[in-house]
Amino acid sequence: MEKGGITYPEGFSASGLHCGIKSGKGRDLSLIFSEAPCTAAGTFTTNKFRSYSLLWTLRNIGNPVHAVLVNSGNANTCNGAENCRHTSILAEELSASLGIKPGSVLIASTGIIGRPLPYKKILSAIPALKKKLHSKNHAEAAIGIMTTDTFPKEIQAETGIKGRHKEVCIGGMTKGAGMINPCMATMLGFITTDAVIEKMALRSALKEAVEDSFNMITVDNDTSTNDMVVCLANGMAGNRKIRSGTEDYEKFSASLKSACINLAKMIASDGEGAGKLIEVRVKGGWCGKDCRRVAKKIAGSSLVKSTVYGCWPNWGRVLAAAGSASARIDAGSIEVSMCGIKVYNGNPVKYDEAKLRRLMKGKKIVIGVDLKKGKFSATAWGCDLTEEYVKINKE
Amino acid sequence: MEKGGITYPEGFSASGLHCGIKSGKGRDLSLIFSEAPCTAAGTFTTNKFRSYSLLWTLRNIGNPVHAVLVNSGNANTCNGAENCRHTSILAEELSASLGIKPGSVLIASTGIIGRPLPYKKILSAIPALKKKLHSKNHAEAAIGIMTTDTFPKEIQAETGIKGRHKEVCIGGMTKGAGMINPCMATMLGFITTDAVIEKMALRSALKEAVEDSFNMITVDNDTSTNDMVVCLANGMAGNRKIRSGTEDYEKFSASLKSACINLAKMIASDGEGAGKLIEVRVKGGWCGKDCRRVAKKIAGSSLVKSTVYGCWPNWGRVLAAAGSASARIDAGSIEVSMCGIKVYNGNPVKYDEAKLRRLMKGKKIVIGVDLKKGKFSATAWGCDLTEEYVKINKE
Repeated sequence: MEKGGITYPEGFSASGLHCGIKSGKGRDLSLIFSEAPCTAAGTFTTNKFRSYSLLWTLRNIGNPVHAVLVNSGNANTCNGAENCRHTSILAEELSASLGIKPGSVLIASTGIIGRPLPYKKILSAIPALKKKLHSKNHAEAAIGIMTTDTFPKEIQAETGIKGRHKEVCIGGMTKGAGMINPCMATMLGFITTDAVIEKMALRSALKEAVEDSFNMITVDNDTSTNDMVVCLANGMAGNRKIRSGTEDYEKFSASLKSACINLAKMIASDGEGAGKLIEVRVKGGWCGKDCRRVAKKIAGSSLVKSTVYGCWPNWGRVLAAAGSASARIDAGSIEVSMCGIKVYNGNPVKYDEAKLRRLMKGKKIVIGVDLKKGKFSATAWGCDLTEEYVKINKE
Repeated sequence: MEKGGITYPEGFSASGLHCGIKSGKGRDLSLIFSEAPCTAAGTFTTNKFRSYSLLWTLRNIGNPVHAVLVNSGNANTCNGAENCRHTSILAEELSASLGIKPGSVLIASTGIIGRPLPYKKILSAIPALKKKLHSKNHAEAAIGIMTTDTFPKEIQAETGIKGRHKEVCIGGMTKGAGMINPCMATMLGFITTDAVIEKMALRSALKEAVEDSFNMITVDNDTSTNDMVVCLANGMAGNRKIRSGTEDYEKFSASLKSACINLAKMIASDGEGAGKLIEVRVKGGWCGKDCRRVAKKIAGSSLVKSTVYGCWPNWGRVLAAAGSASARIDAGSIEVSMCGIKVYNGNPVKYDEAKLRRLMKGKKIVIGVDLKKGKFSATAWGCDLTEEYVKINKE
C-alpha cells in the first residue's frame, strides 16, 4: 500500500498491532510518528472526568511533538491514581526507544472506563511498534484505534498551498463517536499536515474546523471522558509560513475543515446499529449558535432518529425537537423540508406523502430548516436509532 | 366504583368517552368538573412551539376555573391558525352546555402534531360528556387521556389539614411522559383538591412539587409542545385558608409533592418498552441544581439505560454521564453505588459482581451518587432502554 491517511503529508509514518489489551485478536495499539518536530493543537472533552492519557496530552500539547501513542480497549479513566504514573512510564519508554523527549509524546486512549491500564503489555509492544513504523502502514494505525467501528476512517487532501517542492497536504484518521458506543465511549481524531504554520494559526484553524465537524455530530447526549482531536504540523512541505488572516490561512483552514467534516460524517454513518446518515441543514438563523443548537437538537432527537429509521415523515417530531432548542424560533415562520420536499411553512403543507416515504428509504436523509430570522447557517449529522443499537449497548 | 383519583376531593366529578379522534375504540376525550369555582395553578412546557389548547389554558388559568377538557389522539399543535379559533369554539360550547363562562374552561391535548383538530367530533360529544359527569367516573377520565400508556395513572391522598366537616384531600391523574412516545408526545398531569388556599400559595406549592417530581423524570432529552400540569382547588373542604409560610402550607405542600412524585414514578415505570424503573439519588451536592442536573443526566443517559436493561453493572457509564453534567464534581471524591453496593469511591472499589448482577435483575434499580461537596440532594427517575422502545417508535 502507498502512503495515505495520516501518513499522506510528508514525513509521517505509522504502525498498528495487537498487544493484548483487547481479549480477541483485534489491533489495539497505534503509533503516529513524525521525523521532524511538530507544532501541535488539540481540542478536548468537556467532561469533568478525564482520562489519564488525555491529561498527559493536555500537559504536553504545547511542546514540539514527535509521536502520538493510541490504545483502544481501555479508557485509562477513573481507574486509580497509579495509572497516572503508568501513563508517564509509557511516554518515557516510548520516547527512549524513539530517541526523542518524553514531552514530545502525546497519548490517547479509548475503551472501558474504570479498569487498570495494562501498561506492561503496551511496554512490551513498543519495539515491534517502532519496527513497523512506515508511511504505508496508515491503515494499520487507523484499525488499531477502532473499537466497535465497522470500518477504518481515513482521509487525505491537498490544500492548494505551494510548498518548496510539493503542495501542502493534510491527512487524518478517526474513530467512532463517543456515546454511540457501549463501554468504548470515545471519539478520537488525528490530523497530520506537512504545512509550516504558526502555532496560533493552527490552533484557531483546528478550533473552527472541529466546531463545524466533530462537534456537529451527535449520537446521543453524553460527552465521553476521552474525546480528543489533535492536529500535528511538521513543516516538511517547506511552504511560506501560514499566518492568521492571510489567503494561505483561508486555504489551509478550508481544507482542514473539509477533511474534518468528511471524517465526522464517516463517524455518524457508522453509528452503532445505524443504517442511515441524517444531515440536518439549518439556515436563516439569527446567529450561528442558534443554528447549531437547532441542528444538533434535531439530529440528536430519539424521536426524529426513530422516524428516519421507520421511513415515516413525521415532521411534527422535527418541529418539536427544534422548538425545544434554546434558540430564536417562530412557529409561524419556520420552514421544514425532508428529502427536499417542503412539509411545513408556518402551517402544514400538502405534499406527496407516498413519494416522501419512498425517498426516506435512501441511505442519506436530509432535513432542511429555514428559521427565517437572519443569515446564519449550520449543518449537523446523526444516524437513525435501531433495535440493533439497543442490542449492542445492553451487552 | 367509588370516588377516587381526581374526584377524591369534595365537589369534583369526571367523565371519559370515545368521540372518534382515535381511529380505534379507545377513549379519547375526558372532562373534569368542579361545582364550585376553583383557584387554579399550572406549569407549562418550555418548548417554543405550543399547542393551541395549551395557549388557551395559559390565557385562562388566572380565572376562577370550573372545568378541564382533555383530548388524546391529536396534539392541536402546528396544525394551522384556524385551529386556534376551533379551540375557542370548544370552550364556548362546553361552557354554554355546563352553564359556566368560557374563560372558566381549561383545555389540554395530547397526540399527533400537525393534524387539524377534529373539533366537530368533540362538539358532538359534549352532551354525552356532560351527562356522564359523576364522581365515580374518575377512572374513565384517566383512561380518556391515555395515549400509549399501558395503565391509567391515578392517585388520592389526605393532607392532615382539618376542614369544616372533613379532612382536606388531594386527587390526581396523569399520562405518559412526553418523549417516551412516538407521535403522542406529551406528559399531562391534573391535580384536584378541596382545599381553601390562596392563589399564590397554590402556585408556589405546585411549582415546588413539579420541580421535584414531573421535572425529575426523563425518558429522552426532548420537551413536548403540550406538557402541562394543572392544579385546581375548589375550597369545598371549608378549611382555614392556607397561606404561604404557615404550618398548613407545609402540610399541603408536602402532600402535593408526594402525590406528584407518585404520579411521576408511575410515568417513568410505564415508559414505552420499559421493564425497569431507574431511581437516581444524588446527595452531597454544593447546591440543589447541581444535584438535579447530575441525577437527570444519569437517569437520561442512553448508555446507563442500556446497562440497566442488560443487568450489567457498568458504573463507568454512570461516572461518564455524571461528569458531563454542568455541576461541581470531583473524580477523586465522588462515590457511586448501584443497588446498594458501592462500586466507586474516588477509585474503583472491589465488589461482588455476581451479586450485583443478580440484584440488577429486579424491577427497580437504585443508583446512588454522593458528590461530597455539600448538603443538597435530589432524586430523578427514568426507565431502561429496550429494543421494544425502538420498535414502537419507528412505526
